[in-house]
Amino acid sequence: MVSIGVTLLSGGLDSTTVSAYAKHRTDRLTALTFYYGQIHSTELDSARQVSASLGIRHELVDVSSFGKVAWYSALTSPDVIALPEERDASQMGQSIPSSYVPLRNTFFITVSAAYLESQALWAIEQEKLKADEIQATLFMAPNAIDYSGYPDCRPEFFEKMKEVLKYGSKLWSEYNIPMNIETPIIHLSKGEIVRWAKDLDAPLTNTWSCYQGGPEPCGTCDSCILRAKGFQEAGHPDPLLVRLKGGTS
Amino acid sequence: MVSIGVTLLSGGLDSTTVSAYAKHRTDRLTALTFYYGQIHSTELDSARQVSASLGIRHELVDVSSFGKVAWYSALTSPDVIALPEERDASQMGQSIPSSYVPLRNTFFITVSAAYLESQALWAIEQEKLKADEIQATLFMAPNAIDYSGYPDCRPEFFEKMKEVLKYGSKLWSEYNIPMNIETPIIHLSKGEIVRWAKDLDAPLTNTWSCYQGGPEPCGTCDSCILRAKGFQEAGHPDPLLVRLKGGTS
Repeated sequence: MVSIGVTLLSGGLDSTTVSAYAKHRTDRLTALTFYYGQIHSTELDSARQVSASLGIRHELVDVSSFGKVAWYSALTSPDVIALPEERDASQMGQSIPSSYVPLRNTFFITVSAAYLESQALWAIEQEKLKADEIQATLFMAPNAIDYSGYPDCRPEFFEKMKEVLKYGSKLWSEYNIPMNIETPIIHLSKGEIVRWAKDLDAPLTNTWSCYQGGPEPCGTCDSCILRAKGFQEAGHPDPLLVRLKGGTS
Repeated sequence: MVSIGVTLLSGGLDSTTVSAYAKHRTDRLTALTFYYGQIHSTELDSARQVSASLGIRHELVDVSSFGKVAWYSALTSPDVIALPEERDASQMGQSIPSSYVPLRNTFFITVSAAYLESQALWAIEQEKLKADEIQATLFMAPNAIDYSGYPDCRPEFFEKMKEVLKYGSKLWSEYNIPMNIETPIIHLSKGEIVRWAKDLDAPLTNTWSCYQGGPEPCGTCDSCILRAKGFQEAGHPDPLLVRLKGGTS
């Protein structure tokens, strides 16, 4: 059996953990990083370093045109639509926040699956591997925190998407190979993710979570706070901070 | 009822006919034209002129990065994968030709639907139109000739795709509005398409079908031959050729 995989890697904690897991699960793994014009290079550098640490192929995909098409969102049109206000926990899951980007996960999965299908068709038609010995899997890192609000982070959505990847692909129509979508951290807390990352020996030192692109994490943005909480819950120091402070982790 | 639509317009005969139909069916219609780096400008000019003739909004979407991701195809990697050989009619529908581009229609529909959803969310949340008075429809021009070979041109595929557009969108999850996909010429012959285009008063003079970007159609490529056959079957002269020869049609 030859297991071919694609992992969606932003360079943050969650997708790095999932990518480390994917590395264990596959024989041929490629990490795809989506970038828009405006993304700061710290995050791209992290994705590159994580891929190098894991010893996997890494490809950047320019998706800036999607932001223009999926324009009705606080993320793609901050001048038109207000950013989400602070909501307390009781409001979570009751309505979809304005940071929702129309069909973003449908788009990310479709683009990643087109690459995955290409890799698998190559293996069958050019390398002449047997179709019944090929497995094809997408690895993604949606998490319960997102899943409470966004429709395209719910398990039902991923089930529907798998059906489309069957009916719309040559890989299934001609070779009977489904493309699976694995979302292994969807129900984990941030602390559980950190603990699992440690077990997997994921290269957390190379990850970047801060919304800012400075030389070190700001420590005050939502993403920094969530990350700090995760390491605290897990009872581990953050190896990125240890390294920046001159430690050796 | 306010009917919002997006039509996928290449500037050729089929998508122009479908767009003319979509114009009759909607109150707010936008034509999207996908372009790659290499496309000749004649086709883009046609799409612009068709949109102007129909009096609809027209947007170009750069999808050149998708060609790099969906790389295993005779269309995206002609140096790696051989172009399809001539096949007689008895072979049609038996296997998927090498011109298949991984998940192309999944990608085109997703990008178009992200725009459609944006337009509809704007109407509800900013214009304050009532959600139960909004209809949202994508119009596409796959045809029986393609449908015999490509998995993502089959009616079953479009049904699965509609499910994803429900489960993955805010438009359905929060407002109960499905995005429909209409493929009105899927079972028509080229002659029937030409006859319908005439009934719809579609601006066929502005369409371009030739694979070459010359000042006039070559008359010898597959697309020119198929187009000529359509007009012959329908018993109409091709208004593009009439115009180029100095006529007035």
